[in-house]
Amino acid sequence: MTDEPTSQARVAITYCTQCRWLMRAAWVAQELLTTFRTRLGEVALVPGTGGVFRVELDPGDGREPVLLWDRAEQGGFPEIPPLKRAIRDTVAPDLSLGHTDRAASS
Amino acid sequence: MTDEPTSQARVAITYCTQCRWLMRAAWVAQELLTTFRTRLGEVALVPGTGGVFRVELDPGDGREPVLLWDRAEQGGFPEIPPLKRAIRDTVAPDLSLGHTDRAASS
Repeated sequence: MTDEPTSQARVAITYCTQCRWLMRAAWVAQELLTTFRTRLGEVALVPGTGGVFRVELDPGDGREPVLLWDRAEQGGFPEIPPLKRAIRDTVAPDLSLGHTDRAASS
Repeated sequence: MTDEPTSQARVAITYCTQCRWLMRAAWVAQELLTTFRTRLGEVALVPGTGGVFRVELDPGDGREPVLLWDRAEQGGFPEIPPLKRAIRDTVAPDLSLGHTDRAASS
């Protein structure tokens, strides 16, 4: 029985506790973990303040971390499909995202 | 505007993807983050395999990490109140847990 993840990739979702965005952050985390399972080492929920909603990917293999979303720059919240495609392209390029890919190519 | 958490304490919840325990792990994470907010630096969801369900606390201040629950040792899943009390006693001893404390002392 092994319970060690194969990947060291880490996604960190920093969310504003004052704005009550924990549930949104936890939803995004579950979407990513449902799709990528152990292709991600972990998804961290990071409580913050001041209106923050930020999604960062550290590939965990020496490559630079990637800022996938920052509310302060882009405004609003990330859509799940482009978030999944960006993570897939970085840490699991062989993984098909099914309809998420088909939607992107149509 | 500051979005840096004040605490460096980290809770890691390792769960079995084969057993579909992501939702349980995400539920525990949201319970802890709702109670402790920025008194925790982060709660990480860590996908694993082989029936794992483990909750670890790293106080993030030089003290040794604490194993709060390990299904392999205790069997079953942790109850939220004792989990919150153990975390409070370690990283936020001044924090009242309200009815969780009253239930423990009755």
